[in-house]
Amino acid sequence: MDSKKIVTIGGGTGNFTVLSGLKEYKHQLSAIVSMADDGGSTGVLRTELGVLPPGDVRQCLVALSRSSALLRDLFTYRFESGRFEGANLGNLFLSALQKITGDFDTAVQRTGEVLRIRGSVIPVTTENITLVATLSDGFVVRGQAEINNTVLTAAVSLTLDPMPRANPRALAAIAEADLVVIGPGDLFTSIIPNLLVRGVPAALSSSSARKVYVANLVNKPNHTKDFHVADYALVIEKYLGARAFDAVIYNTEPPSAELLSRYAREGERPVRSDGEGFEGAAYRAIGAPLLSEKIVAPQNPHDQIERTLIRHDSVKLAKVLLEQFLDR
Amino acid sequence: MDSKKIVTIGGGTGNFTVLSGLKEYKHQLSAIVSMADDGGSTGVLRTELGVLPPGDVRQCLVALSRSSALLRDLFTYRFESGRFEGANLGNLFLSALQKITGDFDTAVQRTGEVLRIRGSVIPVTTENITLVATLSDGFVVRGQAEINNTVLTAAVSLTLDPMPRANPRALAAIAEADLVVIGPGDLFTSIIPNLLVRGVPAALSSSSARKVYVANLVNKPNHTKDFHVADYALVIEKYLGARAFDAVIYNTEPPSAELLSRYAREGERPVRSDGEGFEGAAYRAIGAPLLSEKIVAPQNPHDQIERTLIRHDSVKLAKVLLEQFLDR
Repeated sequence: MDSKKIVTIGGGTGNFTVLSGLKEYKHQLSAIVSMADDGGSTGVLRTELGVLPPGDVRQCLVALSRSSALLRDLFTYRFESGRFEGANLGNLFLSALQKITGDFDTAVQRTGEVLRIRGSVIPVTTENITLVATLSDGFVVRGQAEINNTVLTAAVSLTLDPMPRANPRALAAIAEADLVVIGPGDLFTSIIPNLLVRGVPAALSSSSARKVYVANLVNKPNHTKDFHVADYALVIEKYLGARAFDAVIYNTEPPSAELLSRYAREGERPVRSDGEGFEGAAYRAIGAPLLSEKIVAPQNPHDQIERTLIRHDSVKLAKVLLEQFLDR
Repeated sequence: MDSKKIVTIGGGTGNFTVLSGLKEYKHQLSAIVSMADDGGSTGVLRTELGVLPPGDVRQCLVALSRSSALLRDLFTYRFESGRFEGANLGNLFLSALQKITGDFDTAVQRTGEVLRIRGSVIPVTTENITLVATLSDGFVVRGQAEINNTVLTAAVSLTLDPMPRANPRALAAIAEADLVVIGPGDLFTSIIPNLLVRGVPAALSSSSARKVYVANLVNKPNHTKDFHVADYALVIEKYLGARAFDAVIYNTEPPSAELLSRYAREGERPVRSDGEGFEGAAYRAIGAPLLSEKIVAPQNPHDQIERTLIRHDSVKLAKVLLEQFLDR
């Protein structure tokens, strides 16, 4: 099959999963990445150095890297003691390059060269933004980390401050795409912050690409408790319009009882996907077994990834995406 | 002329100068680097992460790099605020790689690949050592940073704790060399710590290489006040034996009155090089104009290099070395 242009949209972890599977094929990949993160090591760098958030971008760079496993490990490495405890080497690398070049987008592209990435990693905007949530009672919460600690409902209203212009590279990638994959990822803090950026909804609407949303596997107790796959889609349609995507892909494979009980202790349950939720949807709902059979141990105590032991299998997900939408 | 094998021995700044000039020629370069540094950003990393000192090695890697100026700038970059203030990105890169690989020498070699260096950078030992100075009154000072703050005389006795074995790569490079260049660099804290390492004096003695000492330009008030070039050579001969080198190269070009007065305010004066000091020397004393005409501004407030505004011109120095010893 010809090489097609595929755009992924999300945060660090979800993009990492989708890109890891797709990079085994010969398609041209562009990862559009949320710039709203302000927690953890990334938050420290934003506050103390005044840089843009490197963490999600760095995960995408590592996903697309064709360099040695050692160099990819290095960019994932976190220091374990002293004043550097919890600091990620890849984040420091990107932040230092931003300081030197004065331009985060250039820093991302030069880091991509060092990591010999296949494809492009594109910060959705290069303006310094804060995610702002206005709750249904009018209460306002500023910042992604704070929002993560806040109980939200689908009625929350999200915005960015300031309301930024899109990175022109992001709009160009969407315009030229054959397939756009949104998600998986935290709905309110990784997915929507991309769709709020000025120019992105219009670019998606006018692109002739097929557009697909990949639903999460597990509901986040604070944000999407008891959500059905269709509830995720509905929230996204609120920001993108009624015919935002051609299809929604969701998992049909039940996690093991052991994993389920481990998650239940944290109040986390699988995203609901019974047929009734899809009544009257404007998209095709495509169920498939997408669960990873590997149980991934936490990489290190600072790693945000540690919670997602119920994971997508990136190989299965890539196959479904290509078979359903690009007739590979 | 055929490609010859040249070994340089010193710390970060002196090696940087010699390598920067020599790398424009086609010879095979190996930089052997002191591992005694425990001050500044390097000292923080040693203490807090338990790694070997990366700073001097990093300067040599940058000197030999054929990568973009941006990547070389990145490895020289120091963070300017927050908990990372003063931390050098290249030092963090090397330290993280040491943590991942468990082996500093491997970390140096892999970093050399990222920076696409021409030649080799070789830590003189990969054991975790402390430089120890026993003063003429028997008082013992431990650690390079402490020793830098201590008034020494030529009678000081230096040793390493523990007394380490040499890096086998260092011994091999010396054995195969056509030319060995020792210095310039701080005599007691950058040069001698290489010569103390077990195996290095014997390797130098049995190597058929021409051996040259490049004298410093400025005396260090605490350590080499009023030293003549010959006094430096005498101290080195104390550790290497009476016929340690074939030649000593020193500068004959007077610095400007302005620079001299700026240095005099810090109690620093040019190394003496009047002919009388060389009476009875076992080496050729070669004087040449070696001063840099550029006045280099301090790169940033954390940079150790800022003091050496009276600098060697690396191009002039390389030419003298090659003309005098390799008939280029």
